[in-house]
Amino acid sequence: MYRNHTCGALRASNINTEVTLSGWVQKTRDKGFMIWVDLRDRYGITQLIFDADRTPKEVVEKAKTLGREFVIQIKGKVIERESKNGNIPTGDIEILVQELEILNAAKLPPFTIEDETDGGEDIRMKYRYLDIRRNPVKESLVFRSQVTMEVRNFLAQEGFIEVETPYLIKSTPEGARDFVVPSRMNEGQFYALPQSPQTFKQLLMVGGLDKYFQIVKCFRDEDLRADRQPEFTQIDCEMSFVEQEDILNVFEKLTKYLLKKLHNFEIENFPRITYDYAMKTYGNDKPDIRFGMEFGELNTVVKHKDFKVFNEAELVVGIAVPGGASYTRKEIDKLIDWVKRPQVGALGMVYVKCNEDGSFKSSVDKFYDQDDLAKWAEATGAKTGDLICVLSGPTNKVRAQLSALRMELAERLGLRKPKEFAPLWVIDFPLLELDEETGHYHAMHHPFTSPKPGQMELLDTEPGEVKANAYDLVLNGNEIGGGSIRIYDKETQSIMFKHLGFTKEEAEEQFGFLMDAFEYGAPPHGGLAFGLDRLVAILGGQETIRDFIAFPKNNSGRDVMIDAPAYLNENQLKELNIRLQLSDNK
Amino acid sequence: MYRNHTCGALRASNINTEVTLSGWVQKTRDKGFMIWVDLRDRYGITQLIFDADRTPKEVVEKAKTLGREFVIQIKGKVIERESKNGNIPTGDIEILVQELEILNAAKLPPFTIEDETDGGEDIRMKYRYLDIRRNPVKESLVFRSQVTMEVRNFLAQEGFIEVETPYLIKSTPEGARDFVVPSRMNEGQFYALPQSPQTFKQLLMVGGLDKYFQIVKCFRDEDLRADRQPEFTQIDCEMSFVEQEDILNVFEKLTKYLLKKLHNFEIENFPRITYDYAMKTYGNDKPDIRFGMEFGELNTVVKHKDFKVFNEAELVVGIAVPGGASYTRKEIDKLIDWVKRPQVGALGMVYVKCNEDGSFKSSVDKFYDQDDLAKWAEATGAKTGDLICVLSGPTNKVRAQLSALRMELAERLGLRKPKEFAPLWVIDFPLLELDEETGHYHAMHHPFTSPKPGQMELLDTEPGEVKANAYDLVLNGNEIGGGSIRIYDKETQSIMFKHLGFTKEEAEEQFGFLMDAFEYGAPPHGGLAFGLDRLVAILGGQETIRDFIAFPKNNSGRDVMIDAPAYLNENQLKELNIRLQLSDNK
Repeated sequence: MYRNHTCGALRASNINTEVTLSGWVQKTRDKGFMIWVDLRDRYGITQLIFDADRTPKEVVEKAKTLGREFVIQIKGKVIERESKNGNIPTGDIEILVQELEILNAAKLPPFTIEDETDGGEDIRMKYRYLDIRRNPVKESLVFRSQVTMEVRNFLAQEGFIEVETPYLIKSTPEGARDFVVPSRMNEGQFYALPQSPQTFKQLLMVGGLDKYFQIVKCFRDEDLRADRQPEFTQIDCEMSFVEQEDILNVFEKLTKYLLKKLHNFEIENFPRITYDYAMKTYGNDKPDIRFGMEFGELNTVVKHKDFKVFNEAELVVGIAVPGGASYTRKEIDKLIDWVKRPQVGALGMVYVKCNEDGSFKSSVDKFYDQDDLAKWAEATGAKTGDLICVLSGPTNKVRAQLSALRMELAERLGLRKPKEFAPLWVIDFPLLELDEETGHYHAMHHPFTSPKPGQMELLDTEPGEVKANAYDLVLNGNEIGGGSIRIYDKETQSIMFKHLGFTKEEAEEQFGFLMDAFEYGAPPHGGLAFGLDRLVAILGGQETIRDFIAFPKNNSGRDVMIDAPAYLNENQLKELNIRLQLSDNK
Repeated sequence: MYRNHTCGALRASNINTEVTLSGWVQKTRDKGFMIWVDLRDRYGITQLIFDADRTPKEVVEKAKTLGREFVIQIKGKVIERESKNGNIPTGDIEILVQELEILNAAKLPPFTIEDETDGGEDIRMKYRYLDIRRNPVKESLVFRSQVTMEVRNFLAQEGFIEVETPYLIKSTPEGARDFVVPSRMNEGQFYALPQSPQTFKQLLMVGGLDKYFQIVKCFRDEDLRADRQPEFTQIDCEMSFVEQEDILNVFEKLTKYLLKKLHNFEIENFPRITYDYAMKTYGNDKPDIRFGMEFGELNTVVKHKDFKVFNEAELVVGIAVPGGASYTRKEIDKLIDWVKRPQVGALGMVYVKCNEDGSFKSSVDKFYDQDDLAKWAEATGAKTGDLICVLSGPTNKVRAQLSALRMELAERLGLRKPKEFAPLWVIDFPLLELDEETGHYHAMHHPFTSPKPGQMELLDTEPGEVKANAYDLVLNGNEIGGGSIRIYDKETQSIMFKHLGFTKEEAEEQFGFLMDAFEYGAPPHGGLAFGLDRLVAILGGQETIRDFIAFPKNNSGRDVMIDAPAYLNENQLKELNIRLQLSDNK
């Protein structure tokens, strides 16, 4: 038996007990006649004392050889600590050691195993098993485990059953790229790894399972942006005989349940806003509503003067920055530089200071008088002491730019509080989205999303105007879940594929099984999927997902710890009936 | 709102309530003036009545158009049923329908949606979404979901945390074949899908997570035997600072918990037998101990006569078949034919009838007298009325043959009762196994399994004799779990790789990260993995796993429903920098 207590268990009530502990050496302090060792495991830290007067001599000698991260086992007696440590639960006691066994020595770790480590991202990823020993990473993984347990408990309670769908499925070349898997037994053919279990969960509904969920890995072979992973985890759900309202209610309840369980955070019903409203008010379909700074559109109050920039702009829109009137000229210039960065892309920024005396001072005083500016203040909700920032240009672009500015300023102003949670539903998404490059429309959500009743006819005339039974759950400026009511009849699904540019043959080849299924009594159904990695990160008060993934990949899709992907040997390729065809520059 | 009750909810207490139900038409009975419809959903069946006197005429007319598996919604009043049906929970009531909406029509399904269907395996797999509507399949999937919930609840209670390990990892060409995934971003390189998360869970132990579990898909590209799947699910567990005894205790407790929760089946401590004992007594390392028929070795009591077959055999061994003395000559001949089938491969079988009068009648009376045969009866535990079946030959072969016969006879005699559970531990497995074809030893469990203390030296001299800290959990003749205490120091691991035929470079390339990790303070650790598919099937009282998998693949690894795997288009291959190289006969 390696231990009878963990390193987080012992208290004053255990004094005088003989105990056996195992763990890692966090640090040692050698005062010559006394050696203290902090012994660490997943559960905490317990102080050991090797006392020349009370510990066998050879044990004291052995203790002097201990280095950081050695794995040891000790036996000893729990004694009261002279100088207590109120910061840790075991701080009232220490162990007077009688026996010491070194279970495994350790080389000096390449970075310190501390909450604030000296190791950079790259080295920590290479030695991820050491990084996981650090509290912030360990606690993130434990937290993730708690979140998934709570999700499962809630959904089971609501009558959902968890069903595993297959990982080796069929490639559908449209949409994002699939990862594929050559089949040795079916020569020349390939499986694909699922981008989501979408069609399978719909088939489970056709199969009558009524309420399905699964916490499941999904795969997308995309050029990785920061904080995206080629494999990611979804909480995937689907329900039969439901309308949008039913689904929103269930998953709003789940989200409330999680916030209550994990943070004792209670919240009223979630706001529901339309996609159009979100874009108009926040320039963004996943607004952070922990703070205000809502957009004020200014077209009607700026176009009557000689300011050409505004007169020619499709949209002129501003936000009021709380307390911003006190910014210096230099600070404002920096802000203007910030919006002009290529990542944001604005051509410039007009500003108005709302002075404490009720007057306005703007960068366009040449064109607009105090009455004009008062109207701007009204439209943006600016109060005395605020700064109004105004951007102009093509509607979509300027909204995105002002949204970026809004988020940046909120960040700087400390308005994005990690322990505050402001969920909302964004509903009535467009069914189709125009790909500006190709000029083609593609499905904004996916091809199985149903249009709003009575809007099918618009598909031919104004495809961009068709609204879908699609909804996103947004939390603190992040989309944490999204879903839709699905098409459940073959005819509508065929029309949809046609509008998405599938030939009849392509639709049949790729999704024939689903359209067949719709002919054998498919129920009305819909669902939602949460991105677990992000959900957990946000619930954990963070925005980067990497610490909530045990073994993440880097931005080239590599696992630098195990050094994957890697080359195969010739035999493996031959068995799979494939060979490499490297591009010319290799 | 599609429904306010499910089809399994309504009782006599609901009489006179107005209800809305949705579901599938299970069957209709049209008596002209009255039409009854059985409406089905996941939760049950409710009888609908369309009565010409009390239901609107157009609704009755519409009801006449309903076919099997139509999806409908009805509104009506709960009324008392005239002829009650005691077989279903809703049997006291029926719904007098006032409104009927056909939500989706259905083509006639290709097989009947009944517990006993007329559909063969192939057609049911092609239309798996219809097969899932059948109670036996639906209930198997619901049962699986229950089992996994219970497993998670138990392990969470015991302090395990669930950690997701990656699916895109590195190929290790030794052992079973990997499924591989070409990397587009890392030209010419491939990921592999995990055969198990073995090395990752060990790294989590090095990372200090202490108690890990995961319910996880694993992948093995093997030529499929019946009832094997290329993707399968494991309950994967690992613990730190444990000895074999600790692990056995935790997972024995889990198994007891499942048997109690799922079947209210209570059981004392599980028997523990060694691998050697299992082979000697049952000819098998996963014995079914719901019944006896233990092997009686007969070498010492058969070799003194002139029966050459026995005298030349390495092992002569028999079992006593309860009541088998009454078998006719014809029945016994059939049994002999059975053991001579190529799948079993015995050359013949000697038998002894233990007559009611205490005498013996054998097929080798020419060689052995009554005193001899009495000793056989003693060795095999045969009683009057039993039949002793004796096989002979090379030890390993004859044990396998007699084991097959023992299982077959137990099946025929009804001794393998599906609702009876007899778990046991088989321990002290050999570390290495001789591959008869190549003459090389390979790891019986896997290369990370530790040898029993003090047995490392035997590796050079008698590798086949080294015992491992490895154990299997066996239930009703199936291995449902297996694991080991792992090696946790670099030196031992290196020696092990050497003995398994790895060069130093190969070991470093494939498992360098693990051996590095062992140098930074690896704790003693060990674990176990359950095969979930089989565990669920056996707990469900069945032996075939297919009904417990929502979308299984066939014996060629194909999903016949979605028709995968499939050919990719040229562009996809090109992007992945591979091309097909089909074998000559294609």
